[in-house]
Amino acid sequence: MRARVMGGVQPRQVLELTEPECWDLVGSVSLGRVVFSMHAMPAIRPVNHLVDDKTIIIRSHLGAAIVGHAARDEAVVCYEADQLDADRHTGWSVIMTGLARLVQEPARSRYERLLEPWVDRHMDYVISIKPRIVTGIRLVGWCR
Amino acid sequence: MRARVMGGVQPRQVLELTEPECWDLVGSVSLGRVVFSMHAMPAIRPVNHLVDDKTIIIRSHLGAAIVGHAARDEAVVCYEADQLDADRHTGWSVIMTGLARLVQEPARSRYERLLEPWVDRHMDYVISIKPRIVTGIRLVGWCR
Repeated sequence: MRARVMGGVQPRQVLELTEPECWDLVGSVSLGRVVFSMHAMPAIRPVNHLVDDKTIIIRSHLGAAIVGHAARDEAVVCYEADQLDADRHTGWSVIMTGLARLVQEPARSRYERLLEPWVDRHMDYVISIKPRIVTGIRLVGWCR
Repeated sequence: MRARVMGGVQPRQVLELTEPECWDLVGSVSLGRVVFSMHAMPAIRPVNHLVDDKTIIIRSHLGAAIVGHAARDEAVVCYEADQLDADRHTGWSVIMTGLARLVQEPARSRYERLLEPWVDRHMDYVISIKPRIVTGIRLVGWCR
């Protein structure tokens, strides 16, 4: 453990979260970031989400870019959500990696009613992300 | 424009930010997320950063994964920072895409002094990201 203190904040301990804890945390917030490949380069977009049966549901006008370039309209993506306090250097981050697919009717219409985009832009696609790898960390102070 | 209101929040207008605005915003915060490829899959990690001469500087124990797999120890990555209000659906997001490289001495030691990791984990690498594509948006209400 380093004793050095910069900016009045001690380095935080990293605790690994369990998968149920990760799902609870992602379900407790409405915003995350989808990470995908576009034109063979890494890409990221903040989106709002809902969680349904261990599946992340998002809407995007980039549906074709996110899932459409891969065979059978599915692609490996990451989904990240966090709540990190820049002053206290505490909080959590969850990263889920799995297959993204375009959601078809009738589920599509149901999700469109449940998940309103934050922005006034037509969101052509509803996308489901079924994570196969779920990891998360919590940053905590040494003395709680 | 859609008149429908869900959850008491009207859909927000998306304004494109200029490149100087993007740099100002990224420089105004200390936290972002680096997006890269690892084992041929998309990956993302939240990190703290500093901005030096239109270059993003981060530290990571994943330096080899982030930049080491590519030829000449450089790789295309994204860096994303945002401040988005989940209640008001306002705020901004900036995405920078460019080449990540390992920083060598003497700059490395200087950055290590300036950029203290938030977590008590040995950060083997200092990484510079020189963006070639800088984009950003701000979400604003229709009536300000």
